[in-house]
Amino acid sequence: MSQSSWLPISPSSHFSLANIPFGIISTSSGPTHRPAVAIGDHALDLRAFATADGFSANPSIQNHAGVFSSTTLNAFASLGRPFHREVRAYLQSIFAADTPHPSILKDNTSLRQSALLPLSEVTNHLPLSIGDYTDFYAGKHHAYNVGVLFRGPANALQPNYTHLPVAYHGRASSVVVSGTPIHRPWGQILPDPKAEPKIPALSRCKRLDIELELGMFVARENELGKPIPVDQAEDYIFGYVLLNDWSARDIQAWEYVPLGPFTAKNLGTSISPWVVLADALEGCKTAGIENETELLPYLKEKTRENLLSIDLEVDIITPKGNKTTFTKTNSRNLLWSWPQMIAHHTITGCNLRTGDLLGSGTISGAEPGSEGSMLEQTQGGKGTIKLEGGEERKFIEDGDTLVIRGRAGEEGALIGFGEVSGTIQAALPLF
Amino acid sequence: MSQSSWLPISPSSHFSLANIPFGIISTSSGPTHRPAVAIGDHALDLRAFATADGFSANPSIQNHAGVFSSTTLNAFASLGRPFHREVRAYLQSIFAADTPHPSILKDNTSLRQSALLPLSEVTNHLPLSIGDYTDFYAGKHHAYNVGVLFRGPANALQPNYTHLPVAYHGRASSVVVSGTPIHRPWGQILPDPKAEPKIPALSRCKRLDIELELGMFVARENELGKPIPVDQAEDYIFGYVLLNDWSARDIQAWEYVPLGPFTAKNLGTSISPWVVLADALEGCKTAGIENETELLPYLKEKTRENLLSIDLEVDIITPKGNKTTFTKTNSRNLLWSWPQMIAHHTITGCNLRTGDLLGSGTISGAEPGSEGSMLEQTQGGKGTIKLEGGEERKFIEDGDTLVIRGRAGEEGALIGFGEVSGTIQAALPLF
Repeated sequence: MSQSSWLPISPSSHFSLANIPFGIISTSSGPTHRPAVAIGDHALDLRAFATADGFSANPSIQNHAGVFSSTTLNAFASLGRPFHREVRAYLQSIFAADTPHPSILKDNTSLRQSALLPLSEVTNHLPLSIGDYTDFYAGKHHAYNVGVLFRGPANALQPNYTHLPVAYHGRASSVVVSGTPIHRPWGQILPDPKAEPKIPALSRCKRLDIELELGMFVARENELGKPIPVDQAEDYIFGYVLLNDWSARDIQAWEYVPLGPFTAKNLGTSISPWVVLADALEGCKTAGIENETELLPYLKEKTRENLLSIDLEVDIITPKGNKTTFTKTNSRNLLWSWPQMIAHHTITGCNLRTGDLLGSGTISGAEPGSEGSMLEQTQGGKGTIKLEGGEERKFIEDGDTLVIRGRAGEEGALIGFGEVSGTIQAALPLF
Repeated sequence: MSQSSWLPISPSSHFSLANIPFGIISTSSGPTHRPAVAIGDHALDLRAFATADGFSANPSIQNHAGVFSSTTLNAFASLGRPFHREVRAYLQSIFAADTPHPSILKDNTSLRQSALLPLSEVTNHLPLSIGDYTDFYAGKHHAYNVGVLFRGPANALQPNYTHLPVAYHGRASSVVVSGTPIHRPWGQILPDPKAEPKIPALSRCKRLDIELELGMFVARENELGKPIPVDQAEDYIFGYVLLNDWSARDIQAWEYVPLGPFTAKNLGTSISPWVVLADALEGCKTAGIENETELLPYLKEKTRENLLSIDLEVDIITPKGNKTTFTKTNSRNLLWSWPQMIAHHTITGCNLRTGDLLGSGTISGAEPGSEGSMLEQTQGGKGTIKLEGGEERKFIEDGDTLVIRGRAGEEGALIGFGEVSGTIQAALPLF
């Protein structure tokens, strides 16, 4: 679909008429958080739009327009995919060059002034109130690469890895929106990991890293005790964001046995502000990494075309101003699909709730330069990443800004995520 | 303190005048959730009490009485420990035999009828809206016992165990209040764990277990990036509940490497309904398990008397009606105190929020009959637990009810938790 809009939209915009992602915004003159969609260089303030009867041409949306006065997208998400689909299609029709409803926005100068805001003038906030955050480990190349570093090649992938989507519960409170600065953490590390006995020190993290992931927001809840069948799981998906699961590798290596990562990950997780609806990405499905293991029936899908194809890149911008794209990969580099993750997450009866966030796990390609973490790209700090201006990095240094970008589709009809960025600030003095 | 009340309270009541625990109730005639305290065989409906100016003798409480019209205790908890202390002391004075304010409740027949409800007529609900749930692993005897079963004696306790309070993020959505039935889960297990290659099956859990824990609710939030010093951590504690972290041992054993337990734990976690305030337990502090490891300064406390001494028991009631107390222990069997857990949880900057729930980890004593899980008491299912009526168990069977009880203090001034109970129902047909 490459429909044109009466609103000027650059062909390179992530927020084409084919996209219509949802977020939560505020402005300096209107500090109350409220829903919006991004289109081109603008945000359409949905509270203002709904209040001015912008949805009047569609009674079934109009009846629920109260959800656009909420301070999060949870109420909207909970109405389910058919409703999200209808709202997206309606907004596409409002912005279409040949809109059947020109009086609603196109020719309504007053509403355009009050509701169509330059993106440069809006502040983004967390799009949903997050209940639980679960992080999967579906990036097989990443799991192998990291497994080699933490446990050696013989035990890199555990016997369960190809039978079930490995995951752990993450920390919801420390999920923040793109642009939020992150302080380098203090934590327990082993000054010399090979020395015996193992005596930890309290130290500023020396191996601070990114994890390039996709995040998925849950639309609907299921009842405790009732697993979600894999072929119904798509109905539970609201949409997707880019996710950077900041990771303190030295802290992680010391703490993670036997119950998994904890303080090494709860220092912050950044997400992009605009949720790309599941429906917007329906045309971007492709096959992922082939799994030769015979799956148990609850994880078997009818199609192999079960993964999203989203091109992903990571930039680092140093304090000297040098900007380098050091990783390029694609979200098809996963062993498990989102419906499989949902089916497994709920197989013992776990209830998902509207606003729950699931991470894919770090997405790495098989080739050098496609790794989703610096740990992998430097082989545990043995190598370096060469940057513009003759700089180099093993891990993140203070003042570095890390930016993940992601997009699907074609120029003129891009379905983009914008970006998730975060700058690492020096560790605060401790107490 | 063994003050007497004008309200008849049995000396064996968990809810003496020395206690005053807080919960959320509803009744058949008043289905809206609302705060209450338990006293003897009654609940005092705090919404009704506050609305009838029950707090009028204390203006500083009266000014915040709106928190008692909330449907959770979060608003009350967020006001901080000095406020909780004042409200508890005020309610103790209202119920005291020599109350200085007899007109408020003692001699107010109408308010006693509307606000003082028999416990048998109230329904309990989750006391707080839970943000994140973190489960620690501070029960050293448990960690050792389970470590032996999962990894052998040589690797039972990992090198990090005595240096930091090991923990993992749990699942908040599946925390339920006492009395909520739990369905036996389906999940991936290894039919023969020793066979190679390891081929899992989808099966009803065959090794369903309890975990006897204390839970702690967080009162106040800290800012992301700002650790909580150990000597300020008490200020962040709202109160305590009993916690049963139902565990599917066969599912856990297969899934937990390398990122920790996931579906084996997210099937449900039960808590007792009445939150015993931190202040109520100030007189019950004692020394825990001695840690001979030299701790890093951020975990060092000024006192060794840093653990709560609460007597704990577990009953099983079989479908035949046989009731057996099969475990007796005490909450002092922990290596780490709650302030140490808070200090470690936040050392990398994690933000705690009002309503977060922290679990202690399973509490087991060192002697047979004091283990906080059936896995330990049967040594991984090799032995059996002998029950009344000639019955026996290795793990939980369908229809079994498991009850944890806990109490501190002396007869006549007991500071009790009541109980957390749950009945295991047969697995539901899958899809």
